[in-house]
Amino acid sequence: MMDLAHSLSATGRRLNESVIRRMGSVIPTQGNLVSFAHGFPDSRLFPWSELGEITAGLLSGVDSTTLQYGEMRGYKPLIESILTILAARGITASYEEVIITCGAQQGVDLAARLLVDPGDVVLMELPTYPGAIASFVSLQATIAGVEQDDDGISLEDLETVWRRQQANGRPVKLLYLVPNFQNPSGRLLSLEKRKYLVDWAERHSTVIIEDDPYGSLYFEGSATGEETRPICADGRECVIYLGSFSKMLAPGLRIGWMLAPAPIVRRLEAAKMAADLNSGMLSQRIVDAAIRRGVIGRLAPTLRDVYRRKRDAMEQTLRHELGHLLRWSTPKGGFFLWVTLPSGCTDRSLLGRAIEQRVIFVTGSAFYVDGGGHNKIRLSFSAPSHSQIRRGITRLAAALAAELRHSV
Amino acid sequence: MMDLAHSLSATGRRLNESVIRRMGSVIPTQGNLVSFAHGFPDSRLFPWSELGEITAGLLSGVDSTTLQYGEMRGYKPLIESILTILAARGITASYEEVIITCGAQQGVDLAARLLVDPGDVVLMELPTYPGAIASFVSLQATIAGVEQDDDGISLEDLETVWRRQQANGRPVKLLYLVPNFQNPSGRLLSLEKRKYLVDWAERHSTVIIEDDPYGSLYFEGSATGEETRPICADGRECVIYLGSFSKMLAPGLRIGWMLAPAPIVRRLEAAKMAADLNSGMLSQRIVDAAIRRGVIGRLAPTLRDVYRRKRDAMEQTLRHELGHLLRWSTPKGGFFLWVTLPSGCTDRSLLGRAIEQRVIFVTGSAFYVDGGGHNKIRLSFSAPSHSQIRRGITRLAAALAAELRHSV
Repeated sequence: MMDLAHSLSATGRRLNESVIRRMGSVIPTQGNLVSFAHGFPDSRLFPWSELGEITAGLLSGVDSTTLQYGEMRGYKPLIESILTILAARGITASYEEVIITCGAQQGVDLAARLLVDPGDVVLMELPTYPGAIASFVSLQATIAGVEQDDDGISLEDLETVWRRQQANGRPVKLLYLVPNFQNPSGRLLSLEKRKYLVDWAERHSTVIIEDDPYGSLYFEGSATGEETRPICADGRECVIYLGSFSKMLAPGLRIGWMLAPAPIVRRLEAAKMAADLNSGMLSQRIVDAAIRRGVIGRLAPTLRDVYRRKRDAMEQTLRHELGHLLRWSTPKGGFFLWVTLPSGCTDRSLLGRAIEQRVIFVTGSAFYVDGGGHNKIRLSFSAPSHSQIRRGITRLAAALAAELRHSV
Repeated sequence: MMDLAHSLSATGRRLNESVIRRMGSVIPTQGNLVSFAHGFPDSRLFPWSELGEITAGLLSGVDSTTLQYGEMRGYKPLIESILTILAARGITASYEEVIITCGAQQGVDLAARLLVDPGDVVLMELPTYPGAIASFVSLQATIAGVEQDDDGISLEDLETVWRRQQANGRPVKLLYLVPNFQNPSGRLLSLEKRKYLVDWAERHSTVIIEDDPYGSLYFEGSATGEETRPICADGRECVIYLGSFSKMLAPGLRIGWMLAPAPIVRRLEAAKMAADLNSGMLSQRIVDAAIRRGVIGRLAPTLRDVYRRKRDAMEQTLRHELGHLLRWSTPKGGFFLWVTLPSGCTDRSLLGRAIEQRVIFVTGSAFYVDGGGHNKIRLSFSAPSHSQIRRGITRLAAALAAELRHSV
């Protein structure tokens, strides 16, 4: 009997369950479990009735292309709508520079396929987004980690790591960054560092992949829109910029986009064709109509307000119940609280206790490409309600107490 | 100034415009052009009102997961619905063996990523589907072509090509096949050959990727459902089977599926995560509801009937206007007429004349991995109306007359 497992490619052998486990999604969420694991937006905030109206119009059959195959680049009016979003972020771009993707995850993957040969060095922050790790791992990249400061990637460590790779005869191909309210650290990259990084990338002929799903989710009193200015706004030649509607509208539509120099976009179009032909026309048209009707623009202040209050609720309960044991920095936006555990306690053993208490989170080590992070956990405050947040933190406190009793 | 084009990977260098041009989609379709180029289903046959009703229900907001992220494997009820479709095709499968993809194109791509290392030999029919060529090319496969007979892939040539690769020290990793009403040849692989191929694959430890978008589109009087029995039904161990709802429901939803041994599906799940996290929940739920309400089952006989009559209309007009110059075999199902040009006429020069006459098709050479096919063209009868078919063939006759006058 033949066994297909003997036919795996090098990529296929790397694509195993450990890749999925990093995403924290192997734990069932049924029952009255509280999940701080899933970095999901709050589905109560999706504009259900407006999307219902939009979709009813689209499915009236007046325009037969709504359910048809579409252009590989994407639905042209949607790309034009995205140009207005980019303009509001300080980026003047043209139709030739944008391509629609299946969420920003596909943006990471297509960029990686276009740029990364096996063994090429990719720099990623310590910590960083596991979905991007998965894409680079599957392409057999050599991934090197770069430390973070409170205001984003450490420029000193960046130089050190770059020099070390250079000295080993392995030039650095690209740098992956989530500058705004990073997943998982919540950190905001300072404007000074952004400017520096453009110079740095040009000087070192290194491509920056700027993944920006959380840029519009800055919190009043903590950060301003100006502070989220994309690196890309000042470095169009060396940056591939990734955006998404998953956080600002709904992830179930799977619509994101990439901005890159036009000759690169033409190749991305071929990569998109090989990957899945084109993104769904129905989803693309729903998103386009939501932009044109002002749904996304009207929703944004509400999202910023609701998530800010959830952050506050989680911090308040954490301070009250666990302030003596845990440390974290207040995120200025986004979905995540990045928490340092007390000594004598590791992410994985705490997760075991937490599951017993019916609360889950993602282990810190899932976000590290260097085996570190076992003294960290990521708590997402975006999806649970205020009462779930309070209940979940109480359970976490019980889990931590049990873990510390045990470890003594 | 930095130029990203200098940072391309080997894959990135292969992903250029020629890959897209193969799909015949670089020609604008505006004006009163008749397109026999696009292998699109007829959008008048999409069940608009039923999909409108289904979607209105889903967007009522009762179930908040409709617009949320979903499982990487896919929406579980949809996978269960697909198991019933597979059962009707003679395949008994379980939940662990299926994963949802963004159309069957993503199925080809994920399978290729999981199995193909650079230089690995992939066998493809002469001619074959350009989207699959793109996926294998982007992975730097060595592609070898195998001739077809009237009843599908030539078993003699398969053995010859296999031996030649073996003799050159390059074992064959996989064989890509579209057994039912192949794109572009329209050919139906005989049941005897299907049985033989299972043995052959087992004996040679070669994986078969069976791409089956047209299997349900057999035409009354030409073929029966029994004749489309998947290879996979008799060779589960060596076959990865790809299905799609693009032809039987609507391509704008971008929902397909893969059937593979469970250990392979677990790795495909990691590949799916790296590629785009998961397929859109809204689309998945629309398709699932359409299956459960019987929409797809009720629609199928209509689709078979409408496309059969379009085939008849195209053949009738062709016989009348060009019967003395062109040759083709009557396809027993599917979307395509595969036409041999008279000597003194090549696919590309005829296309130039055809565009002048406002009719387009895909050049035969787009479907060949060995540089051949310049005496062939593919005419899709699926999307145009009967009157467009007649008008388009008349224009094609004018283009051919001009071309033959010129070439004399």
